[in-house]
Amino acid sequence: MSNRGYIVPIGGAEDRSRDGVILRRFVELCGGSKARLAIIPTASQLEETGPNYEQVFEAIGVREARSLPFEQRSDCDDPEALEVLSRATGVFLTGGNQLRLSTVIGGTKVAQLLRRRNAEGLHVGGTSAGAAILSEHMIGYGDEGNVPRAGMAHLAPGLGIFQTIVVDQHFAQRNRFGRLLAALALNPRLVGLGIDENTAAFIGPDDVMRVVGEGSVMVLDNAKVGHTSADRAAPGQIIDVHNVVLHVLSHGGKFSFQTLQPV
Amino acid sequence: MSNRGYIVPIGGAEDRSRDGVILRRFVELCGGSKARLAIIPTASQLEETGPNYEQVFEAIGVREARSLPFEQRSDCDDPEALEVLSRATGVFLTGGNQLRLSTVIGGTKVAQLLRRRNAEGLHVGGTSAGAAILSEHMIGYGDEGNVPRAGMAHLAPGLGIFQTIVVDQHFAQRNRFGRLLAALALNPRLVGLGIDENTAAFIGPDDVMRVVGEGSVMVLDNAKVGHTSADRAAPGQIIDVHNVVLHVLSHGGKFSFQTLQPV
Repeated sequence: MSNRGYIVPIGGAEDRSRDGVILRRFVELCGGSKARLAIIPTASQLEETGPNYEQVFEAIGVREARSLPFEQRSDCDDPEALEVLSRATGVFLTGGNQLRLSTVIGGTKVAQLLRRRNAEGLHVGGTSAGAAILSEHMIGYGDEGNVPRAGMAHLAPGLGIFQTIVVDQHFAQRNRFGRLLAALALNPRLVGLGIDENTAAFIGPDDVMRVVGEGSVMVLDNAKVGHTSADRAAPGQIIDVHNVVLHVLSHGGKFSFQTLQPV
Repeated sequence: MSNRGYIVPIGGAEDRSRDGVILRRFVELCGGSKARLAIIPTASQLEETGPNYEQVFEAIGVREARSLPFEQRSDCDDPEALEVLSRATGVFLTGGNQLRLSTVIGGTKVAQLLRRRNAEGLHVGGTSAGAAILSEHMIGYGDEGNVPRAGMAHLAPGLGIFQTIVVDQHFAQRNRFGRLLAALALNPRLVGLGIDENTAAFIGPDDVMRVVGEGSVMVLDNAKVGHTSADRAAPGQIIDVHNVVLHVLSHGGKFSFQTLQPV
């Protein structure tokens, strides 16, 4: 088992009350009352997002919860902010627009620090846009619908905290089954995680995911895909895909990304 | 290869113009200008449904298109109607309410004749409710949503024309992925077919399905399912299912129900 910290994508709209099971579990993981959390609210355009999460985590009970409002790329060189990230036991990325996260933070010292420190044990969680950005290949935006169609999923480089998955969030609520399939059809080597609202995937250093929360996490495993028509489907046309393996998991469910099987 | 006739479930809302590719193909199969079609409009509560389909098939060009308005179980003993069915080259079941079809026709001479004559070569097609009824285990009604939940799919005995599949129709349009998964989780031996509107599955005597039309047919193969929580999920609770194999097929796609693989 590596020393890597947990990676915790959340499907958005998580319960932010003191009793919210996902955020409580994240806080416990990060040290409970000794936790020092750094919040990255960059995805959001709302000024109150960072301070709101400070209050949420303080109400659950942490030693420190500090919002780091990176608004432009040059903010990501700020020594004080990098110091806060260096001593954090957990980092939380808020929702908003994942392309704002990738364009402001991608390739900066903040992104490097997150990857390096996660490999050394820092826990990194994110909700909605903050979940999408955790993967190397991120769905930047796309269209709703159950059926995969060419052009439905627009990819962008994410932070690359977890290389082999593509996360999609608000999954059932925004009917994103088709766009996740469409993203995966482009190169079947990746595994898709469709995470519902108020639901989280706690991915441990053993590469085992534990599902926490109200909804489901769908795992789309394309390792056995023998055929996809993604290379030749015209825009809007259905993408044929054969032999996708699907797992539906709910609270308490476990899945290993090493064996690609439920545990 | 058996002598069985084609079985043609259609996902509803098929193009009924003269150029509609699905109904044209069905007519060709049944003999084109020599086709004698019997229409069973029982699922529909609208008196015009049967006569409308007579006109649709006559416009495409058939020798005979005759609606048989079975409205109560005793109508299914009518010798003249049974005679029409006996000399038909194809039978078409309209949309409406599949429970009306099963309660009026199920167990009657009409149902027996359809099964026996299909085994001998009669082509049987149906749209929407008329597609659902073709399977042995039919989804009578249920709830929308992507995630399978206990109680989401209510089963009823269908006509049993095709034993090993469960058909769901208006599949993407009415967001029925969850209810088909929920139906299959009850006993993973069956294969699910989720058929979109204006889309058909032409299942030949070789047990190979050919997809025709605008949308997709999703095949949900549960043969490798190692675990489902359908036995203990409380009403409304998510049903965990592991190792469902999914195929997305569009116009021109083929799938064998013998090998359970695309062709």
